[in-house]
Amino acid sequence: MTAFIDNGTRFRLTDPTIAPNAAGYLWNKKMMVQVNCRGYAVAQYMDPEPRKYAHVPTIAGQTFMQPEQGYFTHHPGRFFYVRDNEAGTLFSAPYEPVRAGADTYAFEPGLSDVRWVVEKDGIRIETTLRLPVDDVLELWSVSITNVSGRARDISLVPYFPVGYMSWMNMGGHFDAGLNAIVCTSVTPYQKVEQYFKNRHLKDITFLSADRKPDHFEICQQAFEGEGGLHNPSALQDRADLADGDAIYEVPAAIMQWNLKLEAGATDKLRLVFGPAKDEAEIARLKRDYLDTDEAALTRAYDDYIADGAGSLRIKTPDPEFDTFVNNWLPRQVFYHGDTNRLTTDPQTRNYLQDALGMTFIHPEKTREAILRSVSQQFASGKMPDGILLSEEAELKYINQVPHTDHGVWLAVAMEVYLDETGDRAILSEMAGFADSDEQASVADHITRALDFLAGAVDHRGLPFIEQGDWCDPMNMVGYKGKGVSGWLAEASSYAMTVWAGICRASGDEATAERLEAEAKSLNERINTFFWKEDRYGRGITDDDVLFGIGSDKEGRIFLNAQSWALLSGAADEDRKQKLLAAISGELDTPYGTMMFAPAYTAMRDDVGRVTQKWPGSAENGAVYNHAAAFYAAALYHRNEGERAFSVLRRMLTGSNEADIARRGQIPLYVPNYYRGAYYQFPRTAGRSSNLFNTGTASWYYRLVIERLFGLKGDGEGVVIAPQIPAEWPSCSFTRTFRGAHFEVSFERDPALKGRTIEVDGALIDGNRLASVEAGHTYRVVVREGAAKG
Amino acid sequence: MTAFIDNGTRFRLTDPTIAPNAAGYLWNKKMMVQVNCRGYAVAQYMDPEPRKYAHVPTIAGQTFMQPEQGYFTHHPGRFFYVRDNEAGTLFSAPYEPVRAGADTYAFEPGLSDVRWVVEKDGIRIETTLRLPVDDVLELWSVSITNVSGRARDISLVPYFPVGYMSWMNMGGHFDAGLNAIVCTSVTPYQKVEQYFKNRHLKDITFLSADRKPDHFEICQQAFEGEGGLHNPSALQDRADLADGDAIYEVPAAIMQWNLKLEAGATDKLRLVFGPAKDEAEIARLKRDYLDTDEAALTRAYDDYIADGAGSLRIKTPDPEFDTFVNNWLPRQVFYHGDTNRLTTDPQTRNYLQDALGMTFIHPEKTREAILRSVSQQFASGKMPDGILLSEEAELKYINQVPHTDHGVWLAVAMEVYLDETGDRAILSEMAGFADSDEQASVADHITRALDFLAGAVDHRGLPFIEQGDWCDPMNMVGYKGKGVSGWLAEASSYAMTVWAGICRASGDEATAERLEAEAKSLNERINTFFWKEDRYGRGITDDDVLFGIGSDKEGRIFLNAQSWALLSGAADEDRKQKLLAAISGELDTPYGTMMFAPAYTAMRDDVGRVTQKWPGSAENGAVYNHAAAFYAAALYHRNEGERAFSVLRRMLTGSNEADIARRGQIPLYVPNYYRGAYYQFPRTAGRSSNLFNTGTASWYYRLVIERLFGLKGDGEGVVIAPQIPAEWPSCSFTRTFRGAHFEVSFERDPALKGRTIEVDGALIDGNRLASVEAGHTYRVVVREGAAKG
Repeated sequence: MTAFIDNGTRFRLTDPTIAPNAAGYLWNKKMMVQVNCRGYAVAQYMDPEPRKYAHVPTIAGQTFMQPEQGYFTHHPGRFFYVRDNEAGTLFSAPYEPVRAGADTYAFEPGLSDVRWVVEKDGIRIETTLRLPVDDVLELWSVSITNVSGRARDISLVPYFPVGYMSWMNMGGHFDAGLNAIVCTSVTPYQKVEQYFKNRHLKDITFLSADRKPDHFEICQQAFEGEGGLHNPSALQDRADLADGDAIYEVPAAIMQWNLKLEAGATDKLRLVFGPAKDEAEIARLKRDYLDTDEAALTRAYDDYIADGAGSLRIKTPDPEFDTFVNNWLPRQVFYHGDTNRLTTDPQTRNYLQDALGMTFIHPEKTREAILRSVSQQFASGKMPDGILLSEEAELKYINQVPHTDHGVWLAVAMEVYLDETGDRAILSEMAGFADSDEQASVADHITRALDFLAGAVDHRGLPFIEQGDWCDPMNMVGYKGKGVSGWLAEASSYAMTVWAGICRASGDEATAERLEAEAKSLNERINTFFWKEDRYGRGITDDDVLFGIGSDKEGRIFLNAQSWALLSGAADEDRKQKLLAAISGELDTPYGTMMFAPAYTAMRDDVGRVTQKWPGSAENGAVYNHAAAFYAAALYHRNEGERAFSVLRRMLTGSNEADIARRGQIPLYVPNYYRGAYYQFPRTAGRSSNLFNTGTASWYYRLVIERLFGLKGDGEGVVIAPQIPAEWPSCSFTRTFRGAHFEVSFERDPALKGRTIEVDGALIDGNRLASVEAGHTYRVVVREGAAKG
Repeated sequence: MTAFIDNGTRFRLTDPTIAPNAAGYLWNKKMMVQVNCRGYAVAQYMDPEPRKYAHVPTIAGQTFMQPEQGYFTHHPGRFFYVRDNEAGTLFSAPYEPVRAGADTYAFEPGLSDVRWVVEKDGIRIETTLRLPVDDVLELWSVSITNVSGRARDISLVPYFPVGYMSWMNMGGHFDAGLNAIVCTSVTPYQKVEQYFKNRHLKDITFLSADRKPDHFEICQQAFEGEGGLHNPSALQDRADLADGDAIYEVPAAIMQWNLKLEAGATDKLRLVFGPAKDEAEIARLKRDYLDTDEAALTRAYDDYIADGAGSLRIKTPDPEFDTFVNNWLPRQVFYHGDTNRLTTDPQTRNYLQDALGMTFIHPEKTREAILRSVSQQFASGKMPDGILLSEEAELKYINQVPHTDHGVWLAVAMEVYLDETGDRAILSEMAGFADSDEQASVADHITRALDFLAGAVDHRGLPFIEQGDWCDPMNMVGYKGKGVSGWLAEASSYAMTVWAGICRASGDEATAERLEAEAKSLNERINTFFWKEDRYGRGITDDDVLFGIGSDKEGRIFLNAQSWALLSGAADEDRKQKLLAAISGELDTPYGTMMFAPAYTAMRDDVGRVTQKWPGSAENGAVYNHAAAFYAAALYHRNEGERAFSVLRRMLTGSNEADIARRGQIPLYVPNYYRGAYYQFPRTAGRSSNLFNTGTASWYYRLVIERLFGLKGDGEGVVIAPQIPAEWPSCSFTRTFRGAHFEVSFERDPALKGRTIEVDGALIDGNRLASVEAGHTYRVVVREGAAKG
């Protein structure tokens, strides 16, 4: 058995056991659902905070989204039992809970649906999950076909566990009028105030169908009995379900249809599953999504997804890469930008980087996000830890821990936005502050953010780290108020340089010069205090210990501290070669470049939190793809295109069975990390987090567009500077840009010295078009000589 | 198959499917473990707050102890797979996860151990759980015997799932030096402060054995594989476990011994399982509990339990009742009093009532508890919602919701303590306040608590309910500050009367008169404002609606409001008859007397929280045994001994299969509730909460001692006034009391008119001995005539 790409818009995995956690994900404006190849599912929706409508069988902890989601027999899922009423045999599609195996099996996540096709003993069952655009609801269609060549007597039993809804109140009954299993609950509360806050919640979970079930059951325990979920008592001995209810018992939505299928016959069924406030809402959802034309619903959601299709289409000698970049990568970027990861308080850096990616899909969203962000800035220039998306939202989890880097990301996102759109008008938009009645232009806001960063430094002029900065925060490096961050010094320097360029283009030479001087001086301090043993140290602790250096036992080299030294310009060519050698020797693995190494295996009290995470996992030496993307950005920035591409390419799991089995993932998204600690814990290295929330997607898309294929705005014009890997003899791409259309082909011509660029049939001088005409289609040919240009 | 009482100190259930949740519980000074007949387990220990060392497989929510604990395949448990290496067959003891059935099965919880004996296919496996007295550790002994008459080749595989320890860091390895599977974790935190708080935590869970395992596995998923827990892949095909580890994977402690057993041979094994801070602690625990004589350990724990054996032994025509009262009831009372339910902030009313029960076991503990309670009183006289047991403790969960009744319980507990011990010196002990430097005598503290209650009343002189009072709190009856409580008026009146009696005995006539006058006037107001439609209403809402009356649709009668009207004396004989009739008609069920009825099935906005709980569950119309015990107390108080006994008796599940199956419990404790709503949801009525934390135990023991067998202190003397049910022709009991020993027999003599009492061979006048001589054995014969005295 193998897993392979079916076509550009649909994957196919043909064995649920080689990558048990391989999953597809769907989302809409209000919800997200991740379903894996075996039938397990995790779904969340906004109400207004993230909530679930299908629960684990025990009281679940409220946490942020966890990586490497663990599944177990009674985990929520969407399962379809199929019983042969003559033979008495049972299987379940797609795989759990019976795990009977199948004659043929396919898990087929597509761009706008997730589908399974399972055939066993002459019965083929195809189940498809889609979502509507605006409602919180799962739309299931089930098609069951008798391919056995003889008449069959079958029971089809969808089993949707609802789980432990509430210790206060839960149960379920069948509502004949709604033709639905209605599981009711009351979200627990103990304080009176909470009661009033909870009143609006969708405390019902329901399953409705487009025709009456022959029987049903709602009590999970009654269904399972002594048989176990792999062989439920209620389905033994050809019995019909007992039409039971759940009375303060863990509910499940279980319906039964008894079907007589002639040879070759197909029967179809539609189901909807999701939360509701009350019966009226169920009735409305049923009307809108069961009593309507299925094709129209499918089209509406397809259109929603197509609307996020992105501005680039490529064709290269690497079809897996093409598929990813043309379809799955912009989809992942769109998911982030359109839903803000289904939180109400995204971390400031995440919010701005998600917006950065959205520039290439819906730049008006990027504009909105930048304006919203600066309007929550403090008058001091400090950026908050999270951006609140509604009046009621509040900072939660990690956003309650002060981090020092948020000011960096405004300049970074703004550069991308301006390069792509040329919309300089944004710079003079006015916005207020969180803690003052002042108004200031967006440009002034950003300058103030950078000035704040420049001021939050110690006696050496190095920025305090406090309780952490970017995503390798060691929250005890500087909690006493003394420790400083090497990476943040670099990132600040880089952001200042970027912003200085924008200020200069706006005619604000004074600010440009001031920031450039500050960046230059920062770079000098970086080299003075952090460069050691052929690498940049990650920080200096409260107790004045430089760490992240070669003589450390663990945490000897941190990727971000190297990447951003390349970006900021702190690293000259000599240092660049040295640090690249260190990365090659200590961080590169077959599964990507680790965030740092060796992973900490025990607490190092002066370095902090990171040592408490499991070695190889997020924040302790994983192949953290976001950091790897920064690394690729730095490599492109320093003209190391070959190496940059190899970093990007390794983020995608291969199409071969071994790679997919190793990582537990099919390549329809870049996960936030692959397990690292490759030299310490080889057994688990490379394993996917199976979490698709990550700023990696934005940076990946940006780098592919701006660097790999190299078509990037520059003031009123555009620069054409692809950095194509040597292994590609040729490639081509189309790209929309400021209303114009570019059709670009890249060819190698060994006869040529250097690079030529032909636009609309004529060679141009250099690599820049001074202006771009909206509506025009530019035909561009880049020819590359033997020695790259 | 049936379940029956083996002997007074050990139950035996012979079929794990008739009462799937039937469980035994063990505890020591620092931990509690509840294990059910199928092998599932819930364990908690103090560190210093309650924590778990075996977890569900997902991130668990932190809550107070939940009733009707739901189990599922991957729930924590202690399982012993037994594989026949010739036949390849597999079963697991005691029952889960294989559920193979057994040739003979017995679940045998005893007073100080829990034992299972399972025999299948000629292999008998006996597993026993014990605890040490002071350490947090499970002591397991396993004995496996070949009863097949031929040589056997067996693998024994204890499987102790450890579950989802932490999203931050978890894993496991085998430590050969410790001969232990050591599962490590780091309790998650995000804020620096929390790191320092967490440093002392026992973040390790380990399993060690008294001899080296042949093989082991630690990765739960690797063990289970595609086979499922009922048929783990790692145990298929006669394979040996792979000696694997868990690397940020859900860990389980799994060991394998390959045993060649001759016909008739027995092999034995000892295991210890629990949490530890570090390797050194594991080594110490191993030394203390594996490298030592098992019999000595058993004796030590037996002694600890025997130390709580209580002061009463009875012999009646009802052996089940005798067993319960002689062994299991004092054990339950002792558990509460000695561990404070393993919380650091027991609710004030629970703490004082648990202390009340402890009077009959270790009265010095009661004394301590009373002193501690008054020292946390506010200077206003108000009692806090919870009593903090350590410096670091804080009020949690329901203790953050203000309740108004806590002041009642001091007087109630004190009466029992004084009657039992005669220790009037406690009244002049001095104690401070939570919010003042003042010192006051215990007597003054209690007077002040009652004066506070007397003052917290509305314009009618009725006590405010605010966000709730006793355990049927409807937290929205009075949240606006206007609503009042009928029950609290009665309870205040009763407490004042009780306390007035104690004051008078101390010579404080002024306080006695003042409180008696207040109680009398309260009783009048109770009758004026709450008596309606032949019952006492439960309260009057903020919007001036009297509820808990006959014309209500739901919540028509509340048991507490009737019981305490009997106790306080508000109900005269006429009203008594009427309310008893209402209780009979509306609250009595075969499973006991419901707390109120009909249970609310929908929110009644003016009555509040209770309507949000599932009908029939705790706080919404359950047979809440604590309330039933109050009811029994009231019935005894008003000389309705027959009826009182029937209330008490119905709290014990019967020994017949149907009753045990219905309630899901064997009668080794009174649970806090049986499901009620008997007339509304008959299918689930009678089902046990399976939660043994309840003030019921204290009241039950008190009533049995003071009322049913009727030997109660009275000043310097003792009153002998048993209220023996007519169905008992005779009975006898022994009782220790203030150092004396009473041997009492009760006989019916139809020839007699009234009752005679003979003490040491001589008839006495009345029923009171003026003094009690410590060390003396009193032989008492109570003879009862045809018409009860």
